[in-house]
Amino acid sequence: MDALRRPQRRGACAALSTTMSVWILLSAVSGLKAEDDAMEELTTEKEAEESHRQDSVNLLTFILLLTLTILTIWLFKHRRVRFLHETGLAMIYGLLVGVILRYGIPATSYHNKTPPSCSLKEGPTSTLLLNISGKFFEYTLKGEINSREIHNVEQNDMLRKVTFDPEVFFNILLPPIIFHAGYSLKKRHFFRNLGSIITYAFLGTAISCFVIGNLMYGVVKLMQVVGQLTDKFYYTDCLFFGAIISATDPVTVLAIFNELHADGDLYALLFGESVMNDAVAIVLSSSIVAYQPSGANTHMFDAAAFFKSVGVFLGIFSGSFVMGAATGVVTSHVTKFTKLHCFPLLETALFFLMSWSTFLMAEACGFTGVVAVLFCGITQAHYTYNNLSEESNKRTKQLFEVLHFLAENFIFSYMGLALFTFQNHVFSPIFIIGAFTAIFIGRAFNIYPLSFLLNLGRRHKIKGNFQHMMMFAGLRGAMAFALAIRDTATYARQMMFTTTLLIVFFTVWVFGGGTTPMLSWLHIRVGVDPDQDQQPCGDSFQVLQGDGPQGEGQSKTKQESAWLFRLWYTFDHNYLKPILTHSGPPLTSTLPAYCGPLASCLTSPQAYENHEQLRDHDSDLLRNDSDMTFTFGDTAITANGASGGGGGDAAGGTGWSVNGKRSGSTSEEALERELDSREQELLSRGTRLVFPMEDHV
Amino acid sequence: MDALRRPQRRGACAALSTTMSVWILLSAVSGLKAEDDAMEELTTEKEAEESHRQDSVNLLTFILLLTLTILTIWLFKHRRVRFLHETGLAMIYGLLVGVILRYGIPATSYHNKTPPSCSLKEGPTSTLLLNISGKFFEYTLKGEINSREIHNVEQNDMLRKVTFDPEVFFNILLPPIIFHAGYSLKKRHFFRNLGSIITYAFLGTAISCFVIGNLMYGVVKLMQVVGQLTDKFYYTDCLFFGAIISATDPVTVLAIFNELHADGDLYALLFGESVMNDAVAIVLSSSIVAYQPSGANTHMFDAAAFFKSVGVFLGIFSGSFVMGAATGVVTSHVTKFTKLHCFPLLETALFFLMSWSTFLMAEACGFTGVVAVLFCGITQAHYTYNNLSEESNKRTKQLFEVLHFLAENFIFSYMGLALFTFQNHVFSPIFIIGAFTAIFIGRAFNIYPLSFLLNLGRRHKIKGNFQHMMMFAGLRGAMAFALAIRDTATYARQMMFTTTLLIVFFTVWVFGGGTTPMLSWLHIRVGVDPDQDQQPCGDSFQVLQGDGPQGEGQSKTKQESAWLFRLWYTFDHNYLKPILTHSGPPLTSTLPAYCGPLASCLTSPQAYENHEQLRDHDSDLLRNDSDMTFTFGDTAITANGASGGGGGDAAGGTGWSVNGKRSGSTSEEALERELDSREQELLSRGTRLVFPMEDHV
Repeated sequence: MDALRRPQRRGACAALSTTMSVWILLSAVSGLKAEDDAMEELTTEKEAEESHRQDSVNLLTFILLLTLTILTIWLFKHRRVRFLHETGLAMIYGLLVGVILRYGIPATSYHNKTPPSCSLKEGPTSTLLLNISGKFFEYTLKGEINSREIHNVEQNDMLRKVTFDPEVFFNILLPPIIFHAGYSLKKRHFFRNLGSIITYAFLGTAISCFVIGNLMYGVVKLMQVVGQLTDKFYYTDCLFFGAIISATDPVTVLAIFNELHADGDLYALLFGESVMNDAVAIVLSSSIVAYQPSGANTHMFDAAAFFKSVGVFLGIFSGSFVMGAATGVVTSHVTKFTKLHCFPLLETALFFLMSWSTFLMAEACGFTGVVAVLFCGITQAHYTYNNLSEESNKRTKQLFEVLHFLAENFIFSYMGLALFTFQNHVFSPIFIIGAFTAIFIGRAFNIYPLSFLLNLGRRHKIKGNFQHMMMFAGLRGAMAFALAIRDTATYARQMMFTTTLLIVFFTVWVFGGGTTPMLSWLHIRVGVDPDQDQQPCGDSFQVLQGDGPQGEGQSKTKQESAWLFRLWYTFDHNYLKPILTHSGPPLTSTLPAYCGPLASCLTSPQAYENHEQLRDHDSDLLRNDSDMTFTFGDTAITANGASGGGGGDAAGGTGWSVNGKRSGSTSEEALERELDSREQELLSRGTRLVFPMEDHV
Repeated sequence: MDALRRPQRRGACAALSTTMSVWILLSAVSGLKAEDDAMEELTTEKEAEESHRQDSVNLLTFILLLTLTILTIWLFKHRRVRFLHETGLAMIYGLLVGVILRYGIPATSYHNKTPPSCSLKEGPTSTLLLNISGKFFEYTLKGEINSREIHNVEQNDMLRKVTFDPEVFFNILLPPIIFHAGYSLKKRHFFRNLGSIITYAFLGTAISCFVIGNLMYGVVKLMQVVGQLTDKFYYTDCLFFGAIISATDPVTVLAIFNELHADGDLYALLFGESVMNDAVAIVLSSSIVAYQPSGANTHMFDAAAFFKSVGVFLGIFSGSFVMGAATGVVTSHVTKFTKLHCFPLLETALFFLMSWSTFLMAEACGFTGVVAVLFCGITQAHYTYNNLSEESNKRTKQLFEVLHFLAENFIFSYMGLALFTFQNHVFSPIFIIGAFTAIFIGRAFNIYPLSFLLNLGRRHKIKGNFQHMMMFAGLRGAMAFALAIRDTATYARQMMFTTTLLIVFFTVWVFGGGTTPMLSWLHIRVGVDPDQDQQPCGDSFQVLQGDGPQGEGQSKTKQESAWLFRLWYTFDHNYLKPILTHSGPPLTSTLPAYCGPLASCLTSPQAYENHEQLRDHDSDLLRNDSDMTFTFGDTAITANGASGGGGGDAAGGTGWSVNGKRSGSTSEEALERELDSREQELLSRGTRLVFPMEDHV
């Protein structure tokens, strides 16, 4: 069916024979049932049926691989083996199958002759008609192939068959992984460390990209001197490599953190950074590809092209962000103003469709679907989640959990397979050693200087051992792989792909496996009770006043950041939450009077109820009425309309705040309460007076 | 991208431009980023990007359609509107969008010229090379196109773009629908009516197929006489139409039954019949296609070819059945012998993968994936379900529920769209009127005679009003559509497709909408308590002895059927259940002594526990030890290893049986208890002494 496919350039990527798309397409072709018994049609039919069968077998191979992985994971979990994570395991199984396919099966090809060729003067068009004695056949363009490879038909057909279209990763496997990451971000620690996370993700990834890019340019120059470079390798290629390899994926480390209940702040920093820097790395790599200086000197610095690239970065990023957030907002509105929560199936289906539509919408507008999906996930978790019925909350979480699990393990087992079945590996020892060195240096330039800067503004410092752990947790995974395999057309890109694969293998196995020893070696506490680290709870008000013993010097920086964050939070709590969810204070009390009709239209009846309930029930606790607007806990409205346990807590919180000190900190109290409320629901439905008031940037 | 696509023959089906496969494929093509700035590549790149964007927009259209459908369904459910089901609604929205696409958008085409053509002497091959001044491009065959249509480029590009590859329905959308149907079959009433359901599904579908086929052949002959037939229409085509239109899909009716709690037996008969007859219709239609008599007279009766077709039917059906059942058995073994239920995510993922692998395995072996998936679903529900943790039971149900819901509504909204966007409709009033008449006659020949025959053997007669309701509920839906669209290459097939679409519309809207009035008109009880119809419970033993007042005459027929069913049930309960699940008696007590080691190896520790528990706890109730092997309730082992409430019930059951009469009926008691146990779990965990012993064939 698809002989002679060799990715030659970006365009020829498309020529990579795919299983998934071929799967669908060839099942179509397998419809080629001859109505008359012309010999040639029967041949085509047989070939197509054979192909369809082959595709089924290939997909089956992957499914059995995943099944095997699942069973082994279970065995490992059962025996509490922690040195190998499921993703590492998936890679090992993939490797084994790859070895079997490569060396165990004799090279076969059912195309034992060169396909016919025909000449045209015009350029290639996407559709071509073939005239065979008056009958017309339609052909579509697959891509350009190198002329020297036309007669090279000895390739193992099997190897080509198990090769996926690289866009499958981007359009089918990555979205559920990224959405799930965004959707699980609603963690108290994440919001407490938002500033640091954003700093690491944006500034850190940019630093890492440029450090790695420049180091690799040095390595490439060295290779040129030594005579190891056989084709072109530009500076932009180096930067591109820097961008794709800067996407960290500490999935292995986080799994162990979760299991051992390691420090929550460290978890949030790592998880948040890895989620956000995926988005940055994608957009950064597109911007680098978009860097095309005009004129002859196409690979030197050009200010106009550079600023265009920066513009592309900002445009794609903000466009995708807006797209994702907008879909989330629409979904939350729909779930707020309909009583859809009486029908969890409809609700879940709607949620799924709306989240998927973000991806398509972003792609349709020329933005990046994966990035949009990430921000959509975050918005859904922050707003829509509160409007869903309890049943749907569970359903959506579990649905995306399963999709994420399958997609992730699929990618990792494919990575293992790709090491032996990918046909265009370029192993360059110097480049590989250089890359390993560069990623560590790049990560160090990201973590240590930024941690130092962040610590200037943080009350709750990122300690040395945390910094070392973050350095250590710089694993590479699915995103780096997907970005690398997306384009393996040129020599440079092929070398990058091979190197990326090896880096992923090494980091997942060695660093992933070394997490537990590293944790104990760095004296990072494990077995932390999720609530314990909220203690001691007395000093929070001191900090907010900037009069803590250590906080004195940096109070201004801290205050500013806190002020910014507080501003956003107040806005979110007073306007966004009430507009988008059933929680928060009624808009009628937060919006100016002239917005009255709009406010009452947007406020849900539950908000008034909560309002009244709090006023009636806890009025004895609320001594200061001006704080009212801040003090409503974000009570989760469940399917039956009952308000959660947040109300009592919120009221209690105000009581304490009144006993302590009245200050602008009330919004942060509400924030903390909100962030707690999820965990609290899990613990008990009762009220608990906890005031974790540490001020993190 | 894909100009001039017109399905001409079965082979050309593949030429139907698809959104889904094009979606994946073109996203690959959109990777066509020119590395150098050759003009032609830039053009291709732009075109590909445009295409990718267009695909996103198209998929988005469908998603928004589904979203709209969901919201409207909610509104309807909210206001208790029952005359229009969600599938009917999806069709209406699809129709509206189809009308807009057809008439609202000016005909555009971005191919404003005929694609270049080139000539070859050899036959068409799947791959073609194009030589453009030394550069080679690879092309793949899409299908044959009619020469008169090469210059017809005025087709609306949009219309072609929203057309899906028909195999998408078979390989992507149908499997989750069918699996879900199989997976929800574990209903007490289904097993009680198994004999009747199988009769309707196999015999009934065959009758319906031949009646409709022959009637349509008459209609076609009439059209020939009148001069309305412009192309060939063979007898096999008529039979094929009979097969595809015999697949009933009373989803609308069943939804209303569910809502109104209509009679359980009627529900089971309808649901069971529609699920099983889908499988029969698929295999029947393939067998008819496989009917190719040798020699010149290719469309006349040929005994050899006929028996070959029958052989194909039996081969494909039994092969698919074995494949599906085997996967179910493997899954149940895996879930039984591992402690996977401690990790619901792994368990769910495994379950999903194993179920999917059935489909692929069947396709790889040349059987029918959809049929295999159905039997896999039934096996999974009957065995694996009992081994899963409670959490996974929920998860798997919900996962497939969502997939089923989305796939089903997608198909129905696509149907609406297809009425206006499909390019090759052949509207033939005579054929359409003939088809409407034929399907009613076919259904009547299916229901009434078979009901009469079944009633001869049934104690619990299928009453007249039930028969009329079954007649009325002969709606056509997704399966008929998917079978019809799979092949729209010839004139005959196009006419069938158009007619099928209209039949689906009419039956879903008119019969679906008329269900509620029909129910009351036929005096079918609604609001039935699921348990109420198990009463009265006294006469069951009479029946088993064949000494009931009415049962006298037919006792032999009945007894035989009951004997067959009892044999299977005893086998299932004594051997299959203990081998595949944690429930049932220990194998050591049911298998012969020489199988000892094997038996003890296959028996799960829980089975012994249940055994001991029963013996210790209820030994006072068990007066007859020889009945022991029959008397263990199928206790569902939950995640924490606790046995369900079935044990006490089972013991109680034996007590009653001993008080009543000792007979071969004990296995059926156990059956009833098992069938009840699901409902019982929902009701309460306590013991309940209910003995619904009516004997249904």
